[in-house]
Amino acid sequence: MGKIKLGAIDTRGPKNWDKAEIKAETQKIIEEITAYQKILSASKKRSVLLILQGMDAAGKDGTVRNIFKGINPTSCRVAAFKKPTELEFSHDFLWRVHQVVPKNGEIVVFNRSHYEDILVPTVEGYINNDIIEKRYTHINDFEELLEDHGTTIIKCYLHVSKDEQLERLSERLNNPYKFWKHNDGDWDTREKWDDYMAVYENIFDKCDKIPWNIIPADRNWVKVYSVAKLLRDALVDMNLEWPKLETERFTDKII
Amino acid sequence: MGKIKLGAIDTRGPKNWDKAEIKAETQKIIEEITAYQKILSASKKRSVLLILQGMDAAGKDGTVRNIFKGINPTSCRVAAFKKPTELEFSHDFLWRVHQVVPKNGEIVVFNRSHYEDILVPTVEGYINNDIIEKRYTHINDFEELLEDHGTTIIKCYLHVSKDEQLERLSERLNNPYKFWKHNDGDWDTREKWDDYMAVYENIFDKCDKIPWNIIPADRNWVKVYSVAKLLRDALVDMNLEWPKLETERFTDKII
Repeated sequence: MGKIKLGAIDTRGPKNWDKAEIKAETQKIIEEITAYQKILSASKKRSVLLILQGMDAAGKDGTVRNIFKGINPTSCRVAAFKKPTELEFSHDFLWRVHQVVPKNGEIVVFNRSHYEDILVPTVEGYINNDIIEKRYTHINDFEELLEDHGTTIIKCYLHVSKDEQLERLSERLNNPYKFWKHNDGDWDTREKWDDYMAVYENIFDKCDKIPWNIIPADRNWVKVYSVAKLLRDALVDMNLEWPKLETERFTDKII
Repeated sequence: MGKIKLGAIDTRGPKNWDKAEIKAETQKIIEEITAYQKILSASKKRSVLLILQGMDAAGKDGTVRNIFKGINPTSCRVAAFKKPTELEFSHDFLWRVHQVVPKNGEIVVFNRSHYEDILVPTVEGYINNDIIEKRYTHINDFEELLEDHGTTIIKCYLHVSKDEQLERLSERLNNPYKFWKHNDGDWDTREKWDDYMAVYENIFDKCDKIPWNIIPADRNWVKVYSVAKLLRDALVDMNLEWPKLETERFTDKII
């Protein structure tokens, strides 16, 4: 039994937060992220991997859009994981993931991740339990490998309520600017809501060496602020420094 | 003999342009790009490849930073080409380039490109002329392949003066926030300025099926405006449309 019980965790966030204040604070944090990213990118010693998980319409895309506007795309990348291709299926489940992890100096966002390779097979039952159990271990080992190389991993579960999801999925059927987001399959997945919650709780329990952050996601401004703050704090903790000048020549040109 | 003579083209841009006006217009254009990118990304039928070439310190990085702030990194990528790795050298020169071209829905910026594989070998003389000549042909064929798939290619040469480059390279030796940009090799390349100009003129002549844009790059605000405008215009020309709703189900949920 996992320690995190999603049903017991609020999806809206603190009642006493003021929207205008939080939005202003978020803007400030995003500017700080931009400043730190410059040093991260110039010094090329560390990297950041931000993992976003959550049910359909939990707001993963919006998180990326809102936090990474203003961030230089030269050293920021988004990797979105969909249903594996035939080639990807012909490899171990971490093969395609490993190829797109951040290099030194980069911030990479995983929009969904290797955790989908536990979620879907467990709920759909198409991989047996022993293999699933081994995947948990492989994921822990893999994340440790990345951290040992200097990658800070931030894991976020965007916690949306079932009611709020219904609102959002319905909106996609009625707003012409959101038609492209509609996917019949999302409604089928919604039918298995409780199963997904159970697997998520198991994941939080078994893959907690790098802890999970449960982000209240029913209100976008709460969600964006919460994720941005985690990213900013991670960058601060890195104690980044501008590189020194490396040259043996041109001393005549240094004023 | 090429038709474009770089020595005859101004590096500062129109004298009568007003900086404040142009910057305001640039901001407007960037917002338009952001709006078009949403449709491009939702409809996933076309893509854009923006190629940035120019001497060291011509302002390629700054162009990316300034234009793509505010652009959703989910469907925007930057590919920077440095000296090829051993693995890359073991393939044809377009192998590594082909791997990172935009997929449908994406805007990709090439910070340097396959044109470096003509520039450096020609100036340094380490590949014979016949092979260089064939590379011109291969590049034209390759770009046609991408356009036939639905990729709009925008080619920009950031035209900086030799004096302005000296200012900028010297700044990198004296400003602690720019030390990381310093590279001894840039000063060696500078010694071969005229050779590079000659090859560039040859490129503009031989690879003009998709025309080159010579961007005045001594003043950053002129440069950013000019490139942003090309990108915006390309997006307008695509006549992008929001996708229709695709579903056979859920008619009961459509209001």
